[in-house]
Amino acid sequence: MIKLIDIIDFLGNEVIEIYGEPSKVKIKYLKAADEVDEYTLDFINTIRIDKQKIAEMSLARAIIVAGSIIYSDSLKAQSKVIIVVDQPKLAIAKIGNEFFAEKIKPRIEPSAIIHPDAKIGKDVYIGTNVKIGKCIIGNYVQIFSNVVIHDGVTIGNYVVIKPGAVLGFEGFGFEKDSLGNLLKFPQLGKLRIHDHVEIGANTCIDRGALKDTIIGYGTKINNLCHIAHNVVIGQNVIITGHANISGSTIIEDYVWISPNVSLRGHQRIGKGATIGMGAVVTKDVPAGETWIGNPAKKI
Amino acid sequence: MIKLIDIIDFLGNEVIEIYGEPSKVKIKYLKAADEVDEYTLDFINTIRIDKQKIAEMSLARAIIVAGSIIYSDSLKAQSKVIIVVDQPKLAIAKIGNEFFAEKIKPRIEPSAIIHPDAKIGKDVYIGTNVKIGKCIIGNYVQIFSNVVIHDGVTIGNYVVIKPGAVLGFEGFGFEKDSLGNLLKFPQLGKLRIHDHVEIGANTCIDRGALKDTIIGYGTKINNLCHIAHNVVIGQNVIITGHANISGSTIIEDYVWISPNVSLRGHQRIGKGATIGMGAVVTKDVPAGETWIGNPAKKI
Amino acid sequence: MIKLIDIIDFLGNEVIEIYGEPSKVKIKYLKAADEVDEYTLDFINTIRIDKQKIAEMSLARAIIVAGSIIYSDSLKAQSKVIIVVDQPKLAIAKIGNEFFAEKIKPRIEPSAIIHPDAKIGKDVYIGTNVKIGKCIIGNYVQIFSNVVIHDGVTIGNYVVIKPGAVLGFEGFGFEKDSLGNLLKFPQLGKLRIHDHVEIGANTCIDRGALKDTIIGYGTKINNLCHIAHNVVIGQNVIITGHANISGSTIIEDYVWISPNVSLRGHQRIGKGATIGMGAVVTKDVPAGETWIGNPAKKI
Repeated sequence: MIKLIDIIDFLGNEVIEIYGEPSKVKIKYLKAADEVDEYTLDFINTIRIDKQKIAEMSLARAIIVAGSIIYSDSLKAQSKVIIVVDQPKLAIAKIGNEFFAEKIKPRIEPSAIIHPDAKIGKDVYIGTNVKIGKCIIGNYVQIFSNVVIHDGVTIGNYVVIKPGAVLGFEGFGFEKDSLGNLLKFPQLGKLRIHDHVEIGANTCIDRGALKDTIIGYGTKINNLCHIAHNVVIGQNVIITGHANISGSTIIEDYVWISPNVSLRGHQRIGKGATIGMGAVVTKDVPAGETWIGNPAKKI
Repeated sequence: MIKLIDIIDFLGNEVIEIYGEPSKVKIKYLKAADEVDEYTLDFINTIRIDKQKIAEMSLARAIIVAGSIIYSDSLKAQSKVIIVVDQPKLAIAKIGNEFFAEKIKPRIEPSAIIHPDAKIGKDVYIGTNVKIGKCIIGNYVQIFSNVVIHDGVTIGNYVVIKPGAVLGFEGFGFEKDSLGNLLKFPQLGKLRIHDHVEIGANTCIDRGALKDTIIGYGTKINNLCHIAHNVVIGQNVIITGHANISGSTIIEDYVWISPNVSLRGHQRIGKGATIGMGAVVTKDVPAGETWIGNPAKKI
Repeated sequence: MIKLIDIIDFLGNEVIEIYGEPSKVKIKYLKAADEVDEYTLDFINTIRIDKQKIAEMSLARAIIVAGSIIYSDSLKAQSKVIIVVDQPKLAIAKIGNEFFAEKIKPRIEPSAIIHPDAKIGKDVYIGTNVKIGKCIIGNYVQIFSNVVIHDGVTIGNYVVIKPGAVLGFEGFGFEKDSLGNLLKFPQLGKLRIHDHVEIGANTCIDRGALKDTIIGYGTKINNLCHIAHNVVIGQNVIITGHANISGSTIIEDYVWISPNVSLRGHQRIGKGATIGMGAVVTKDVPAGETWIGNPAKKI
């Protein structure tokens, strides 16, 4: 049980206003809306228009909300504590990470196999049966079980790599010879992953052919994605499950790639663009636009 | 070589009628239609309308069929044995599993790494380099090489998990802060897998965010699927290859999800619905309906 | 640094003509067009129509081109060496593989777990934590970390298998019993992989049900593909990322399967056909045709 006043302390000046008396309230967990009980720290999403009613109906004793709540007689009678912030879900995320989420302790599992010349930063977690080649890996990195990282990959700080991801192997490039046989085109580039990137389970990111594959600061990639050679991804991009990013694609900052998207390669997705679920994109997408469909078109 | 009479014994009262003399027939294997020979136990699918002709043309000495076959002079002259049952392919499945399929012997491979507080049932197979956290695992479970199961996962009885599956890791949820950076939303739920579930190779199933991800009794999931946080799947659901089930989707009993389907999340797929190959489904699908296309629509 | 004359020697009679004096030129690397410098061996793709201008503007001292280049005063003044061949990119591929690409030394990593009755050819590389059942594996094969190969798989010579691939496990086949439960249909076939095949990271290829799954000579399969039971693939087929090839599909020689393609199964893709990105193909595709869309149609 965590004291609500410790949570309020942690939020600091994000708290705009508090209604009710928090000093005796204790919190056991965060819960989804349909499982909230008296030990839950509840929250109401900014987009809800029925905030007042949700607050009054909630079984929780403490609720985080944004603006426009009146501390009604009903709330008062229930001794509820209403904590007003700008972004309730963001506040819950911070509280959850601080008070409730598991903490992975830095540690290199004995079954991990690491190249003797790899440079590994401080306070990293390297899970069971991980294989790391001659790489440079930053601080506070978490690499979970069975990840395979080839020689020549550079990984920044605070990067999270989930189980089974395969990083820095040869891209898929072939030249047809006069007999129709497929000769491998050499894959001589590297893979560079910047700070605060997250890479999903069983996701594959190939190294470049003649230049590097790059994943920018803060970009999050979900499970089972394929990022091909020479792809360059900007900052804080979201790439969701099963995305297929073909070779030499450029994805600018703050782009959102929905599940099962296919990008043809040799194209540019402009800053802040949104690519809808299952979209098959064969052209450049200008900044800020939303494209959906097969073939994908602007909406 | 297996005696046909032993197979007939095994089928027991599923056998409706037998034509011909089984006592001297021996069976070596099951084969596909174009590879049948005299040592094969052949079968004719219920949907075939030319059953009589197939039976007469088959090179096999023993054939399992459903209804409406006449023990013609031709079949008699060939000394064929015709075994009549209700569902020939189901009978062949049972025979194959009993007499011809490999049996995986219960065993925990020495390279498996299992949390000391994990509870493992009886007669389980745990393959090479499997990693199991602090979990509860039932009886008669098979977990193949390189599967990674995080703390807090509950697995029922008779569950099969193929190589490289990743179970119970953090879902993909982020909140944008005022600088546009992506802060992880805590993933505090669990993953619960009921009895008789099968999970394909390299498939990933995330644990819930604020509630649990649940896979219901008898559900079969093929290779390379992504099942996101908070998804709740009912009983005897079929989920085929590359399906992408986004967060908080509810899939009711007996649904069929075809290859490469994308479900948007926060939606319900009603009982017995069929989602066609490559469908991009952004809405609720009522029970029993079939939806196809991008975007998916009812047919 | 590599002497240009050694590279010219290696190309042998592929060299049609040389302009300029190669004897003192040294090469450090191959680079993408926008990173070319004086130490680069540059090349100009056959399809470029502005070859003369590219050659004159290149910062490289040595350039491989096809036909129709004039050794202009500008090229002469820069002391450039122009090497004329039929297929410049193919020549660069050969040069890259010979002089610049990493060579994987044959070796079996101590953490690999290999069935005592497996037959392993000569000069193979088997990476960390690979699991190989009772299989036959040819010569000059490379199998990278965490690959899992079930009993009964046959692999030819010069095959490359990238990390996390899962080969030869049970296909996804079930029969519904009278209670609506799903009974496994036995998967009794094998998986056979011919010479010079490449299999991508985390790709899964199932063994056959009643017959074999077959991958033909020289076929290249990219990351995260699913090849189901009984699929038969011909020679020199290209299968790109996230392709989903359902059961009993026949793919003839020289077919090109683009990213995220879904093939329904029990169908034939004719010789040299091209299936476009994201295509959902439910019918047979005649030889040489190109199909795109959901559902896929001929263009």
